[in-house]
Amino acid sequence: MRSSIATVCISGSLGDKLTAIADAGFDGYELFELDLVTSRLSPEDVVSRSTDLGLSIDLYQPFRDFEGVTPDQFARNLRRAEHKFRLMNRLGIDTMLLCSNVGTASLPGDALAIDQLGALAALADANGVRVAYEALAWGKFVSTYDHAWNLVKQIDHPALGVCLDSFHILSRGSDLDAIATIPGEKIFFCQLADAPLMNLDVLSWSRHYRLFPGEGNWDLADFVARLVHAGYQGPLSLEVFNDVFRQGDPWVTARDARRSLVVLEDAARAARLPAPSAGRPDLLTGLPTVDASRGFSFIELQPGTGTAVDVTLNQLGFTPRGKHQRKNAELWSQNDVHVVVNHDLTGPQPQVAALGFEVTNVQRASARAVALRSHLLPRDRACDEDVLDGILTPDGTEVYFSERDGDTPSWLSEFGPADPDPASGPSTGITHVDHVALVQPWQRADEAVLFYQSILGLVVSDGLDLAGEAGLVRSRSLVTADRGIRLALNVTPVQPGVMDVYPNHVALHTDDLIATVTALRARGARLLPIPQNYYDDLDARLDLGSEVIETLRAHEILFDRDEHGDFLHVYTMPVGQVFFEIVQRTGGYDGYGAANAPVRLAAQRAEERQQHTD
Amino acid sequence: MRSSIATVCISGSLGDKLTAIADAGFDGYELFELDLVTSRLSPEDVVSRSTDLGLSIDLYQPFRDFEGVTPDQFARNLRRAEHKFRLMNRLGIDTMLLCSNVGTASLPGDALAIDQLGALAALADANGVRVAYEALAWGKFVSTYDHAWNLVKQIDHPALGVCLDSFHILSRGSDLDAIATIPGEKIFFCQLADAPLMNLDVLSWSRHYRLFPGEGNWDLADFVARLVHAGYQGPLSLEVFNDVFRQGDPWVTARDARRSLVVLEDAARAARLPAPSAGRPDLLTGLPTVDASRGFSFIELQPGTGTAVDVTLNQLGFTPRGKHQRKNAELWSQNDVHVVVNHDLTGPQPQVAALGFEVTNVQRASARAVALRSHLLPRDRACDEDVLDGILTPDGTEVYFSERDGDTPSWLSEFGPADPDPASGPSTGITHVDHVALVQPWQRADEAVLFYQSILGLVVSDGLDLAGEAGLVRSRSLVTADRGIRLALNVTPVQPGVMDVYPNHVALHTDDLIATVTALRARGARLLPIPQNYYDDLDARLDLGSEVIETLRAHEILFDRDEHGDFLHVYTMPVGQVFFEIVQRTGGYDGYGAANAPVRLAAQRAEERQQHTD
Repeated sequence: MRSSIATVCISGSLGDKLTAIADAGFDGYELFELDLVTSRLSPEDVVSRSTDLGLSIDLYQPFRDFEGVTPDQFARNLRRAEHKFRLMNRLGIDTMLLCSNVGTASLPGDALAIDQLGALAALADANGVRVAYEALAWGKFVSTYDHAWNLVKQIDHPALGVCLDSFHILSRGSDLDAIATIPGEKIFFCQLADAPLMNLDVLSWSRHYRLFPGEGNWDLADFVARLVHAGYQGPLSLEVFNDVFRQGDPWVTARDARRSLVVLEDAARAARLPAPSAGRPDLLTGLPTVDASRGFSFIELQPGTGTAVDVTLNQLGFTPRGKHQRKNAELWSQNDVHVVVNHDLTGPQPQVAALGFEVTNVQRASARAVALRSHLLPRDRACDEDVLDGILTPDGTEVYFSERDGDTPSWLSEFGPADPDPASGPSTGITHVDHVALVQPWQRADEAVLFYQSILGLVVSDGLDLAGEAGLVRSRSLVTADRGIRLALNVTPVQPGVMDVYPNHVALHTDDLIATVTALRARGARLLPIPQNYYDDLDARLDLGSEVIETLRAHEILFDRDEHGDFLHVYTMPVGQVFFEIVQRTGGYDGYGAANAPVRLAAQRAEERQQHTD
Repeated sequence: MRSSIATVCISGSLGDKLTAIADAGFDGYELFELDLVTSRLSPEDVVSRSTDLGLSIDLYQPFRDFEGVTPDQFARNLRRAEHKFRLMNRLGIDTMLLCSNVGTASLPGDALAIDQLGALAALADANGVRVAYEALAWGKFVSTYDHAWNLVKQIDHPALGVCLDSFHILSRGSDLDAIATIPGEKIFFCQLADAPLMNLDVLSWSRHYRLFPGEGNWDLADFVARLVHAGYQGPLSLEVFNDVFRQGDPWVTARDARRSLVVLEDAARAARLPAPSAGRPDLLTGLPTVDASRGFSFIELQPGTGTAVDVTLNQLGFTPRGKHQRKNAELWSQNDVHVVVNHDLTGPQPQVAALGFEVTNVQRASARAVALRSHLLPRDRACDEDVLDGILTPDGTEVYFSERDGDTPSWLSEFGPADPDPASGPSTGITHVDHVALVQPWQRADEAVLFYQSILGLVVSDGLDLAGEAGLVRSRSLVTADRGIRLALNVTPVQPGVMDVYPNHVALHTDDLIATVTALRARGARLLPIPQNYYDDLDARLDLGSEVIETLRAHEILFDRDEHGDFLHVYTMPVGQVFFEIVQRTGGYDGYGAANAPVRLAAQRAEERQQHTD
């Protein structure tokens, strides 16, 4: 299906918006009236720009507050409509969006609305254009799509049809079955928006919190499938009012928007995408499916200046396993965990630079990523090296896909033979990567959720607010069905000057945290100190027995419990912009110790303050 | 009454919070459990800090999910309570807040709740403490204050009373009359929060959007008066969960909080403040009263480097009127508008530095400002100079109070005789300051509303979102009843690198905008160009007649209309961080041309882009 987007979705001047929309690969756009009114481009300029960019102008919108009015007001409204029809002729636009009256409607009754809308249809026809009538969820007399269709059906004029907007229909919880009763040729337009489930007045919800498909909670694949079934032939068009997108980079927002439509079309089976690496056909139906990914393949760190990363890895029980054949990079391993310290990355602070994920077929995963408009990273590769395609994520971390060669990751052969550090000791019991937590720029948090969901086939769980001393950290976790991959995406508070960069972290699993912690301390590791008050509260909350409490206290281990099992965890001190967590899950515990996040955040800030005063 | 505040209201470590709370002048505080749990301070440390700071610890909070549970759960809950009672003994706190059960309550019925709450009261009594039971608005079985009181009354135990929280009571729209039926000694505690009127689920509303009294929409003076009438003797305590305050500077938030309580006590007639400059007794009852201020007395500008400010003032028709006797400052005047260009201010960019307001009694106005915890600005003053006290506003602009001496501002004598610029021409018809729009830091927007409301006696109007190209500008206007002062406080979008500093502006009134614009252009002024599309849309929207439309178009004048009258306005080009607007109001038009704000914002960005490409 053709793709389109309303200019109101993104920020910038009209000229910038059009370029960004074209660059993202849309076929056309809805011209939002205010974007034209505030622009120095004349209607003719807009037409020629659009032609140059290969964009059709699919809709002029919105026209408001027309029907259900007094004769005087009706005459003024017809005059206003005629002005806009002439403007549409200058712009070469054939369809205008008419929203049901929310403001000036003073006279109820379908008869009057039919009369006035009929006159509008005739006027549109005389001007060679047509009108798509849409029920706003907060319309005064017409607020449901079936009511709007009922009026349009009775008027039965070729220049009058309906516009179906997923927000206005789904926000009211309307029954969707009536869509099938509308002839496809009378559905003049369709507008798509997702939204988070909120119990907010529908006008505020609509104006500030809409999201692109896949970023919210609605099943838009079903909505689109119903439109297609009804015979709708027009474009799939996005109309999303969102406070954050309004102030974002227009190119970034347009690409995010286009990605959402590609995934949606795939899910609605109206398009053919390369099969997802997860191998599941219905990405957006909300049903978690098995993901073929076998989890984290490696973590790549930027070492920063100094040797703090090497010291920390050594303390954690990692062993140097070999140097990269061509790059200034060293591999550290412990059981199934592989950490690449890449000295070619020269930033001043240690940081998580890249994540490697193991997939069944690298080429298919990469093709999917490209189809979803992510940029493949250029990679110089010797011909005997493994296929390892990389893409850039919204927060700047790189993601690489790799396959498995028998029991070992296929890229392992790129690293030379082990050059064991005589100082390194045995494993501390760390077995695998449990999860990785990445701080997201607040402007790109919703985009990141769609990115990881669509490209890696992860399933998003509900969000959580974690109370930090300096503000709330908003966290969303994404997982594979088998929990082989767990990612936490965090949006941190903005408090200029105070801890304005929150570190990312890598959580490593052990089957015996007490033994691991004992080994770490024996190797000189300093773990994040936990306040005594925490253990007193833990004792009050959970009747664990004084022996357990005192053991946890002695090892400064944090504890959480859900209905399935227990979670024990500790943190290393930050090394630049990264720190490590060591966790032990027992039973089927499925969380991340969120209840303890405020303790960790406060302890990190206390350490930070202490360093400043030291 | 004694004043108190919950530690959860502000950001920082527990140590920082206590210092900030003491510095702001509170008598005590509610200790929020998580603030203790995450702190390295032991309970004994907290006691000694509080003693040193002169703060009482008025409440331990919250204790949750106690009543309405199975016998097993009840036993665990009693154990948990006993731990906390012992902790309270270590802290020297005599009252614990118990919230009605929202989570684990599984057994309905008052009888069981009475039984279990009664046992808790006995246990509290045995430990020398007492319990204040509060109905959370989303409690599972107990969600209204009268229900909570009914249980407490039946239990009739000296160690069990109620806590009345304005949020939980007012958010449900409960009838307040039952407050009078509760004996004062059974109201163990009162928690105060204001809130904006929102149609949002009450839990989200409560956790993220509470405000300090006077910053939202509720009549808390009435609420407090009812408590006093019922015989409540405890502290007035603030409990405000707000995402912005959580990440603000704790000292700023604590001072804002304290100011809100001082104003509230005044409004509830429970305290005696110096009479407000507005001379009105009931500041927070929501009834606009006459303000004694006669409006803007002067505008002080920082000139920046270069002569752009002088050039602009000259083009606007201002005449140099004299130099300050001691300072390197010059006065420019035109009719009732006085602009002081202060060359002692040496910032690089022109900017609004200060606003002068005329009041009936400077000393009274200053005493009120001080009582409301604003800092008087130090001012070196020669003994023959006028009394002119200044205070610092949240956005850094200074405010000065002055009186009138017959027909002229009393400070006018500080400026020497006029030294007329031979190049200056006659007035362009500008008569007075219409309004001033100040950009507020987003962290301090709510504080600023309370500041201007309480200190200048302005009345806040509803907020508006203005759609700018780079995001929404959130605007609130504050006025005196006679509109002698109009202030617009704007919070602008944060888009790093793109117009991240929005300019302030000063709007000047003329009785004949066309004549004024003609005079300005004749003097070489360049006004902000308005796109042609605007006039085409104006023609479609309002049937003004082609002659009027063409006149507006020729002069690039923006137009708005409300039910009372018309508004015509133009803008100068920005001079550094300030620009001027010239407006003409006819009839009783009472707005600011908000419908045209997107046009202005887009035109300013277009100019900015053009300057960058020039």
